[in-house]
Amino acid sequence: MKGTVLYGPRDIRFENQPDPQIVQPTDAIIRMSATCVCGSDLWPYRGLNTINAPTPMGHEYCGIVEEVGRDVRSIRSGQFVIGSFATSDNTCPNCRYGYPSSCMHREFMTRAQAPLLRVSLADGTLVPTPGLPSSDLLPSLLTTSDVLGTGWFAADAANVKPGSTAVVVGDGAVGLLAVLSAKQMGAERIVAMSRHDKRQHLAREFGATDIVTERGADGVARIMDLTKGVGADSVLECVGTQESMMQAIHAARAGGYVSYVGVPHGVQLDGQQLFFEHVHLHGGPAPVRRYLPELIDLVLNGKINPGKVFDLTLPLEEVAEGYRAMDERRAIKTLLRP
Amino acid sequence: MKGTVLYGPRDIRFENQPDPQIVQPTDAIIRMSATCVCGSDLWPYRGLNTINAPTPMGHEYCGIVEEVGRDVRSIRSGQFVIGSFATSDNTCPNCRYGYPSSCMHREFMTRAQAPLLRVSLADGTLVPTPGLPSSDLLPSLLTTSDVLGTGWFAADAANVKPGSTAVVVGDGAVGLLAVLSAKQMGAERIVAMSRHDKRQHLAREFGATDIVTERGADGVARIMDLTKGVGADSVLECVGTQESMMQAIHAARAGGYVSYVGVPHGVQLDGQQLFFEHVHLHGGPAPVRRYLPELIDLVLNGKINPGKVFDLTLPLEEVAEGYRAMDERRAIKTLLRP
Repeated sequence: MKGTVLYGPRDIRFENQPDPQIVQPTDAIIRMSATCVCGSDLWPYRGLNTINAPTPMGHEYCGIVEEVGRDVRSIRSGQFVIGSFATSDNTCPNCRYGYPSSCMHREFMTRAQAPLLRVSLADGTLVPTPGLPSSDLLPSLLTTSDVLGTGWFAADAANVKPGSTAVVVGDGAVGLLAVLSAKQMGAERIVAMSRHDKRQHLAREFGATDIVTERGADGVARIMDLTKGVGADSVLECVGTQESMMQAIHAARAGGYVSYVGVPHGVQLDGQQLFFEHVHLHGGPAPVRRYLPELIDLVLNGKINPGKVFDLTLPLEEVAEGYRAMDERRAIKTLLRP
Repeated sequence: MKGTVLYGPRDIRFENQPDPQIVQPTDAIIRMSATCVCGSDLWPYRGLNTINAPTPMGHEYCGIVEEVGRDVRSIRSGQFVIGSFATSDNTCPNCRYGYPSSCMHREFMTRAQAPLLRVSLADGTLVPTPGLPSSDLLPSLLTTSDVLGTGWFAADAANVKPGSTAVVVGDGAVGLLAVLSAKQMGAERIVAMSRHDKRQHLAREFGATDIVTERGADGVARIMDLTKGVGADSVLECVGTQESMMQAIHAARAGGYVSYVGVPHGVQLDGQQLFFEHVHLHGGPAPVRRYLPELIDLVLNGKINPGKVFDLTLPLEEVAEGYRAMDERRAIKTLLRP
């Protein structure tokens, strides 16, 4: 088969690779129905994460099970399945506490931008749908593998409740789906911080009630205005930079909740400043596996349409253009069809 | 009157000062029944917080109301009252959300190591007891003004629930009362991290089930042993240094809760490390006013005896010795009687 490999900054190649094989008896091989490019793929693509060797890429996936190892019990060939970007046995203490993305046997997926994928810990990682979904649902189902689950975690970790005021920092696909998630959890007021017309439009479609275009101190001042000087109940940080994190912390009210769901890059928090901000802080790799059954249901029942974040669809072999379009912000998110 | 003033590192003087007067119509003057030295007083005492001018000291207090301003409604002369180290109107949005220590009209108290004290926002700040308490209850009642309320917040912010495993980092008076608080909130296992015999003893009396004497990485390894490699549900950081904070964060399980209640000194948190630790983090100035009615009740009903943290009682005029004894760790906490 051919798969996606990053060789260095902005050097994505779609090239020959060995077909994946069952290695552990708990593995499954799936044939990809759809995969995509993640905002987090742009960190190494832009050279902001160093890579030391050609690196296979991709961690969002859904597809049909081709083969399972001899110890796999709950997953069968022919099923349509979705899994998290982090594998999990779904039985260890961390999984049982609701943090499968910190499973004691976790592996972070990579190699999903390819037609075939080996998934380890298949029983714990993969969730099958009842029957084969229609193809128009594929984009939305694919989002549950990471980007929607991550936006959902942003809202959950920021304690969004019915009636909350939620602020979303970041208008990438995760930020937009954090808006959708906050709406689903009953937030009354949802402020999207975005300066891009098209993204603002989608944010409104997903439930944003207000748009703030300013950033940094000016952005915080606008949130303070909107909340009568109090700050927001929940702030969902979906970028991962120092500026966005501080913007999020300053925008929350005393006793409010700040979540952060993108891998922080260069973020340093001053303990004393955090102390007097008086906020709750929670984040990390989204426990997507915990949310998968509920999110798949919401998609299959037509309650949500998160697949709208894909504004570019390309054949898998054009993956390099998919990266370029997202890097240049011509696309919010690129779906790839094998 | 004479009051306590810090002139510089280890230079505490008990010297003439003007008697406090009603300044705002919402003020009250109280005559101190008991006051004390706080662990946080040791930061400037040790020269670790710079002071630029002679600084009146003290923020823990209880006593009899002498006089109230003309706008005070709920507090009367002759009542025995306790207030928080942070004044609050108890009506602003931050107060209503449960964070009176971030009241929009907050002032941090200072000048309480004196026989008379002006308390601003008396209606919102002070809580009267039903009748005058007997003198044997004074030490425990005094603790509700800060040190117990702060330990209580440590347990509350770390989400201690019935059945939890809680680890307390720090064996100062706040740490010891964090043990007591965790016990009250139903923690099943309470690990006190302490290397001092006398403090270990008091920790056990307050409810600690395990003592860990190691610190840093060794201390974390011991917690991991005690929790079968998982980490604790709740870790209560009651010191405020980089080492204690990292010890706390590493000792918590994925999805666990870390609280921090002492003003952090030189603490820097790396965003990416925090992200992969997957913990909840919450702290700040303890919202003592929120807890006061409940804590006063627990003391008056004899359910708790937090006053045991006072292992040295001195006449107020010997306040300098009270600081010295705590600085040299000869005393856990010094009570001062005017």
